[in-house]
Amino acid sequence: MGQPRSRQIGSPTSSLLKVYRRALAKGTTREGWLAVEGPFLVEEALAAAPAVRTHSVLTAEGGWAKFARLMERLPAEAEAVQVPDRLFEQVAQTQNPQGIAALVELPSPNLDTLLGGQNLLLLVACGLQDPGNLGTLMRSAAAFGASALFTLPETVSPFNPKVVRSSAGAIFRLPVLAGMEVNELLHRLRAARVRIIAADRHSPAQLEQADLRGSLAILVGREASGLPPEIAREASLLLSIPIRPGMDSVNAATAGSIFLYEAARQRRFKY
Amino acid sequence: MGQPRSRQIGSPTSSLLKVYRRALAKGTTREGWLAVEGPFLVEEALAAAPAVRTHSVLTAEGGWAKFARLMERLPAEAEAVQVPDRLFEQVAQTQNPQGIAALVELPSPNLDTLLGGQNLLLLVACGLQDPGNLGTLMRSAAAFGASALFTLPETVSPFNPKVVRSSAGAIFRLPVLAGMEVNELLHRLRAARVRIIAADRHSPAQLEQADLRGSLAILVGREASGLPPEIAREASLLLSIPIRPGMDSVNAATAGSIFLYEAARQRRFKY
Repeated sequence: MGQPRSRQIGSPTSSLLKVYRRALAKGTTREGWLAVEGPFLVEEALAAAPAVRTHSVLTAEGGWAKFARLMERLPAEAEAVQVPDRLFEQVAQTQNPQGIAALVELPSPNLDTLLGGQNLLLLVACGLQDPGNLGTLMRSAAAFGASALFTLPETVSPFNPKVVRSSAGAIFRLPVLAGMEVNELLHRLRAARVRIIAADRHSPAQLEQADLRGSLAILVGREASGLPPEIAREASLLLSIPIRPGMDSVNAATAGSIFLYEAARQRRFKY
Repeated sequence: MGQPRSRQIGSPTSSLLKVYRRALAKGTTREGWLAVEGPFLVEEALAAAPAVRTHSVLTAEGGWAKFARLMERLPAEAEAVQVPDRLFEQVAQTQNPQGIAALVELPSPNLDTLLGGQNLLLLVACGLQDPGNLGTLMRSAAAFGASALFTLPETVSPFNPKVVRSSAGAIFRLPVLAGMEVNELLHRLRAARVRIIAADRHSPAQLEQADLRGSLAILVGREASGLPPEIAREASLLLSIPIRPGMDSVNAATAGSIFLYEAARQRRFKY
């Protein structure tokens, strides 16, 4: 910690501004650093140090005083950059830019270390498309003590800016492993003796009647279509959430969150 | 049921088209009829007849053959109207119009009749702002056998088009009472001996340790700020969902859905 050195940029052609603009639109820089916008997410990233490394913080000059306290928490190695308000607005991707953004580096979870743990609670997103749904699930996973979130290919990127916003900072607290090939992942889970269960609205076996203690991976499918059959058949248990006849299902993020809640409830986590 | 009489409109200044355009943008007509777009919602509305009355269905000419089966289910008193595709696109409010929309009348729930029921499970949305969240909650309420949804003033309208889409048809199956003044509602609930519980992330009393059987109203607050204190203090019980220390909360719709799931679980509904 300490007073950050501060640099001012006045030119819209600055390479750092180009990096920010592209990364805030896309979610990540070429190095894979996450770009986040707004005081809430910047503060969450700083709070997750040292696991999360903040490389730089960009502020609009008009917001400098407002963010002074937050900037005091900036680690010494991070760069603080000020730009005129109109330049910040060109870089920002939110509708009402709040004058602060950051480039941060998430930890790279090690799969061997992760799978070596006890009593794992893993969530596997298999094809979710809606960023709000994946972000909401990520937030629930962190809240209910999940060990990690995996996203298969064909799933919206967990680093998509809308996902990160919906996660409300959970992305800084939950190990996230994106893009693993499904057969490789299932193989690794089995080798680690992690039980694989699937959320399947058509299953006669009901969530609350299953024993959800011990190391567990919960597979959650795509909105509307659910889990692809070739993935569902790899699960050792298919479970449905009991709902009223005539109703089709609940929202995908809601379903995944209820699985996590029920697993946490059964495990009686000492929070 | 039967073959609907079909009318063709070719002029963009038609008064019916003006009604559709305004209602699809706003959610309802001046009479309070709901405007819905897309084959899924139109089909859900027709499936909820006769409680839900379909007044008219508007189709794009290019989609007529695609929707022929759906149109066969149109009740005799409903009007079927065809318009050229370009006119439909002017009326539609979705990004990729699918060529079908309808004006439907939801039943008007009677509060006395409703509160005269046994074992009520009521959900009260107190200030939710995000349409996706309210729609998701509505879907969960219908799925978990809730008796009705109330929305207080200052809450996003349950007839907002984005809410209706997120509800995935639940709005046709769940009695919805919008805009009741909070003191009036709480008074009526108490008079009907409905226990009032509130979702409050700061409460030391945990959801799963409470008895959620018997007639119950669950109050769910606003995103980020939660329930206003003056409403929370009217509840007979404040309950939190246990989450990992350091995590602030789960998404508002997720929280409400978990309350409903837990209530349904404890009641062991015979679905």
